[in-house]
Amino acid sequence: MSLIAVARGDEPPDLVITGAQVFSAFTREWLELDVAIAGGRIAGLGAYDGGTRVDADGHWLVPGFIDAHVHIESSKLVPAEFARAVVPHGTTAVVTDPHEVGNVLGLAGVEWMLAASESLPLDVFVMAPSCVPASSFESPGFALEAADMEAILRHPRALGVAEMMNFPGVIAGDPEVLARIVSSHVDGHAPGVTGRALNAYIAAGVRSDHEATTLSEALEKRQRGMWVLIREASNAHNLRDLLPLVREFGPSWCAFCTDDREPDLLFREGHIDQMCRIAVSEGIAAEDALVMATLHAARAHGLLDRGAIAPGLRADLVLLEDLTEFRPLRVWKDGELVASDGGAEAFAAAPIPEFVRATMRSAPLAADAFAIAETARVRVIETIPGQLITLAREDEPTVADGCVIADPARDLAKIAVIERHHATGRIGLGLVRGFGLQTGAFASTVAHDAHNLVVVGADDASMRACAERLQEIGGGIAVGRDGAVRGELALPVAGLLSDAPVEDVVTALEALQYMLREQGVGDDAPFMTLSFLALSVIPALKITDRGLVDVERFELVPLAV
Amino acid sequence: MSLIAVARGDEPPDLVITGAQVFSAFTREWLELDVAIAGGRIAGLGAYDGGTRVDADGHWLVPGFIDAHVHIESSKLVPAEFARAVVPHGTTAVVTDPHEVGNVLGLAGVEWMLAASESLPLDVFVMAPSCVPASSFESPGFALEAADMEAILRHPRALGVAEMMNFPGVIAGDPEVLARIVSSHVDGHAPGVTGRALNAYIAAGVRSDHEATTLSEALEKRQRGMWVLIREASNAHNLRDLLPLVREFGPSWCAFCTDDREPDLLFREGHIDQMCRIAVSEGIAAEDALVMATLHAARAHGLLDRGAIAPGLRADLVLLEDLTEFRPLRVWKDGELVASDGGAEAFAAAPIPEFVRATMRSAPLAADAFAIAETARVRVIETIPGQLITLAREDEPTVADGCVIADPARDLAKIAVIERHHATGRIGLGLVRGFGLQTGAFASTVAHDAHNLVVVGADDASMRACAERLQEIGGGIAVGRDGAVRGELALPVAGLLSDAPVEDVVTALEALQYMLREQGVGDDAPFMTLSFLALSVIPALKITDRGLVDVERFELVPLAV
Repeated sequence: MSLIAVARGDEPPDLVITGAQVFSAFTREWLELDVAIAGGRIAGLGAYDGGTRVDADGHWLVPGFIDAHVHIESSKLVPAEFARAVVPHGTTAVVTDPHEVGNVLGLAGVEWMLAASESLPLDVFVMAPSCVPASSFESPGFALEAADMEAILRHPRALGVAEMMNFPGVIAGDPEVLARIVSSHVDGHAPGVTGRALNAYIAAGVRSDHEATTLSEALEKRQRGMWVLIREASNAHNLRDLLPLVREFGPSWCAFCTDDREPDLLFREGHIDQMCRIAVSEGIAAEDALVMATLHAARAHGLLDRGAIAPGLRADLVLLEDLTEFRPLRVWKDGELVASDGGAEAFAAAPIPEFVRATMRSAPLAADAFAIAETARVRVIETIPGQLITLAREDEPTVADGCVIADPARDLAKIAVIERHHATGRIGLGLVRGFGLQTGAFASTVAHDAHNLVVVGADDASMRACAERLQEIGGGIAVGRDGAVRGELALPVAGLLSDAPVEDVVTALEALQYMLREQGVGDDAPFMTLSFLALSVIPALKITDRGLVDVERFELVPLAV
Repeated sequence: MSLIAVARGDEPPDLVITGAQVFSAFTREWLELDVAIAGGRIAGLGAYDGGTRVDADGHWLVPGFIDAHVHIESSKLVPAEFARAVVPHGTTAVVTDPHEVGNVLGLAGVEWMLAASESLPLDVFVMAPSCVPASSFESPGFALEAADMEAILRHPRALGVAEMMNFPGVIAGDPEVLARIVSSHVDGHAPGVTGRALNAYIAAGVRSDHEATTLSEALEKRQRGMWVLIREASNAHNLRDLLPLVREFGPSWCAFCTDDREPDLLFREGHIDQMCRIAVSEGIAAEDALVMATLHAARAHGLLDRGAIAPGLRADLVLLEDLTEFRPLRVWKDGELVASDGGAEAFAAAPIPEFVRATMRSAPLAADAFAIAETARVRVIETIPGQLITLAREDEPTVADGCVIADPARDLAKIAVIERHHATGRIGLGLVRGFGLQTGAFASTVAHDAHNLVVVGADDASMRACAERLQEIGGGIAVGRDGAVRGELALPVAGLLSDAPVEDVVTALEALQYMLREQGVGDDAPFMTLSFLALSVIPALKITDRGLVDVERFELVPLAV
């Protein structure tokens, strides 16, 4: 075995990184020694001759970052472009739950995600989606059954069961829900679940959670043996709120994850490196941040071949300029240099099969598709900036001509979810507060988890213009005003992803966000917030093509109170 | 699933422990709440009604202790008696390497160990012995091949590959040695191995080590990703020397193990509880000691169902009187009370099959069996109190009548290793210093790893008396003087174990140790020290039936220099 011979010094390494401060994840200290690499693995730490020499000039050599829980689809990028976006930020592995493409395309969609993430300079591990559909209130393109999950788990990059979002079903001991636990490695999703309900959820075999939003919630989960996956997503900024857990109890049993990030956040601010930067700016020791960004994420998923700089492990390495900005100077994957100074070459993207493109099948909109009959009191979804959860409010609607209408003056917009997979013509209607939309509308075929067509508007004509445009172009996001579309980003891949380079996607998205700001929307990530208003498993009030969902009672409720 | 229903409070628990300070291994803090148990598992932490109530009266509830690396055979007890010795001390699981019985009886011996440890209130996990024989210098009853290891690994209680003691072979990349790595979970054994040799050993896939004797050695191993299994054995007292690692770098990646303990140490001072006691007396926080004694030992072996008090885990629990003495008031295994106030009922021991008893097959001793021809300068094995390693010395022997003889005045005893499995008549002869033996002899058929008959003496007649007595009784340990046996402890089970209760074994062993003290031997565990003088994989100079072994050069060397 050549690696052993290199390690003991009898054969030359392929590469030796000298002069670095080398991070020891197991002791959280820095070592001044060479790192020798052979055959894509770390051969040894110490003094090594031969091989290509890279002088690290006193900079900080750390393991490649690992995202412990992400949905790649939220980046709106195909896997090769996602890799091109995150690898220069030092990420060399992600654990993804491909349940977005699973909702649109079923098992074939997950298999496409696995195929499309082959041979990248980023190891894409997959958890088998456990909740497709997320609940019976949602209408996906396809469902995934336990047998489909088992099929996924036969793939060498499949690790276990993805987030068990149907936490009420788990806690109730629903046999159909428990039948989805087809592996001993099970990720969780238990927003706000505490006490005996949390005990029940964990007793079912769930080993992690990334939904904690407060110190007390995260602490209770960690005390009971869950890996706390600290999240910093585009619209779930939980990192700062959870850092006291690390400050008080140390970084054990904590790892970093991003869950859902818009491409602009990935491109402008970064990925796991950005979480390290924030953590350190909040007073966390760099070494504590780094173990959460590397070793702990690996061990949370039972990955023993990475997450540290140690003999035998994969040579996934990042040379950081400093321990405040965490800017990667160089990134190596399996011993190969794959990014320098923030930039990476394009990685060969697999061709996209036609079935992944042709997913928009919605019925034409009726003339009165968005009309809401007059009623005295209505339920209102209220968004919370930077959070996935909503508040369930009630209010008196504004009425005109016998119909409930949007009322920008009161920050009341209409929201519609249009079924788009089976042309049923089903539309759920409601009201939403919190966007600040003063005029026009915006729409998206990214609408968790079933990814029907969601549209929010101040007037019906602009809503119709946006929705019909997305029907035409096979999915995407759009902004409209005065009954016409102002701008759009086509997402022809499953109605979720662009096939364009990350730079183009970011430019288009930012243009749309700018238009929305002009139209009164203050949210930093309005399309992300929009996309979660249809997710029926995160409290409190959500909407699907079947109508409003009271998540806490876990039932459909009428708009009228 | 009833456990989930109990957890959420809809069905009554079997047992509720109230009023305890409950150890949270994941945050190293104490929680004041109930622990509910159902079906042998922990259902939940919190407030629970119903079930049998146990008031813990403010005492300390911790997970059952786990020994991360032990050879049960060193206790000289059959597994049921070993359990009776350690369970009252709070141990509820051990990871054992049955390579002693493997050396004597091969695969059948390991299978007997697995069968004899069924249905105990102690989970006995087995690592497949990787080095039987330990080296080509040793003569066991049977060898274990890679195929035998694979057969062992099919057992549900088999976890991986036991300590790769042939570290020179691993480091050299010897294909026959590497072929023994038949699992991804591999325990190590690398005494004094550092630098590039250590890198090579780890790069081969070895994940733990329990042989570090100094802080710097343990630190280097931990930095490179090994689990440091801190050992406190009868004759390898490494705990105090390694605690600075915990003090300086925290308890992560460290766990406790006992490796080899004489029954008197287990019975008088305890097991993992004793290691906690020592650690705390040395200034380690009780919480840090406890995670090394529980959770870390479990995780080091990939055991996710134990090691903490958390929902879904096994209800293996210990109620401690305090956090200084760590005296268990009660011990529960799978939710059943199995020990109280230091005592346990006898556990049903399986009948011992005849083939496990009839293992002594040695040739009659020739009249001059122990004679050493005169020579000017000889190699001398020097023992070190409390350590497994020896020093390789040279000296001028004392000579009489043309023969090298023992010389108690110079603390030079004769040592002989007599092959006892295949009646070859092969005997290795040498000299040993360090016991202080002034008169007589002592002998044992426990002689790592091949377990031939080892005898040390100040005179040949006493050596012969001891050796011949052990040949008669099928193995054991004996002390002789003036050409006659003074006392013995029969070990008829594989020549390694007694079939008597632990109390009787301790009484007999202590009597023999007392006799040896009368004869000048100062060692606390002289039979343990004796038993390791034949182990050819621990430095520096050892002896087998084939002669002296220079372990560092890994070759046989003549007695004469």
